[in-house]
Amino acid sequence: MLDLEPYSARLGGKTGIYPYKIKVDRYLSDLRGYFLEEQIVEEMLSRNENPLIYTVYEISREFEGEFNVGCTIIYPGKIGDEYYFTKGHYHAKEQTSEVYVGLSGEGIILMQNREGRTFAEEIKPKTVVYIPPGFAHRSINTGKTRLVFLAIYPSNSGHDYETIMRTGFTKIVVERDGKPTLIDNPKYRKKL
Amino acid sequence: MLDLEPYSARLGGKTGIYPYKIKVDRYLSDLRGYFLEEQIVEEMLSRNENPLIYTVYEISREFEGEFNVGCTIIYPGKIGDEYYFTKGHYHAKEQTSEVYVGLSGEGIILMQNREGRTFAEEIKPKTVVYIPPGFAHRSINTGKTRLVFLAIYPSNSGHDYETIMRTGFTKIVVERDGKPTLIDNPKYRKKL
Repeated sequence: MLDLEPYSARLGGKTGIYPYKIKVDRYLSDLRGYFLEEQIVEEMLSRNENPLIYTVYEISREFEGEFNVGCTIIYPGKIGDEYYFTKGHYHAKEQTSEVYVGLSGEGIILMQNREGRTFAEEIKPKTVVYIPPGFAHRSINTGKTRLVFLAIYPSNSGHDYETIMRTGFTKIVVERDGKPTLIDNPKYRKKL
Repeated sequence: MLDLEPYSARLGGKTGIYPYKIKVDRYLSDLRGYFLEEQIVEEMLSRNENPLIYTVYEISREFEGEFNVGCTIIYPGKIGDEYYFTKGHYHAKEQTSEVYVGLSGEGIILMQNREGRTFAEEIKPKTVVYIPPGFAHRSINTGKTRLVFLAIYPSNSGHDYETIMRTGFTKIVVERDGKPTLIDNPKYRKKL
């Protein structure tokens, strides 16, 4: 029961949350195969261009019934017309949900369940987005500044990245006439 | 599966969160027996003075593994030297936790477990407070404006108000020399 203590943390600043326990950086090379225009990604990597796409700072916990609190920072940028995003995942434990609280910047939370039902919600300061059980979720930075949001989810929810890596999301978010636009993902594959 | 859909909600404004599903008002008469100076409460009520102490606006959900998202607004005020507070409760389901996100105003989150281990954390804008499993929690408005914060917790966590009603918290928060001060609660009773 050593760690079963309350804590408080500050929001804002460089890391979005402080103090934190874990920092995870995701570079373009970690998202190989995720973007529509794979050839652009491969060309960049072959030139040793490997931009940082997003960082997660997290306060993880370990006991039954606990919550993790994480802060995700997605940097502004695009691969071709497609905005930078997080890999996206289902929770390994199906009956778990997640709550996002926007802190700065602007973006879209893309959600879909295993039947392909898809939802998109805007994330920005003073906005809460609720991800119910069974919905994969990806965050997309559609703005010109860092997108920063808080995520609260059960410590034991786990991550299934593999399904999304194989199927993609039904939709992607691209810039059209200077504006973020949701379009069908030509590479989406129904789960085999 | 009718209700198992994502949503987004706006933070701020009069209700703290919008849209919401449920509104609960707690007046002084609902907190009879909770404050240290019971005679002041009884005198006020006998004069038909029954101020609104706090309001909760909530988006409740109903399926396995879902989260409720609530916004609590505690109005500024005192009974004697003791600042307005929420009743405080344990979760009926022990292995559940809760996360608070401060939105406006300032206050204290008082937490204690069934062995009487007590913690106090400040709540204010850009602050997260984590309430681990097994900890009763009460929120106290120590400022001159509304204290507004977001609460995220499992939909099936339930409320045990009865234990705190019987024992009280180990500590209370009172004004001393114009400042909020944590003191031992003379009326605290170890659980019988």
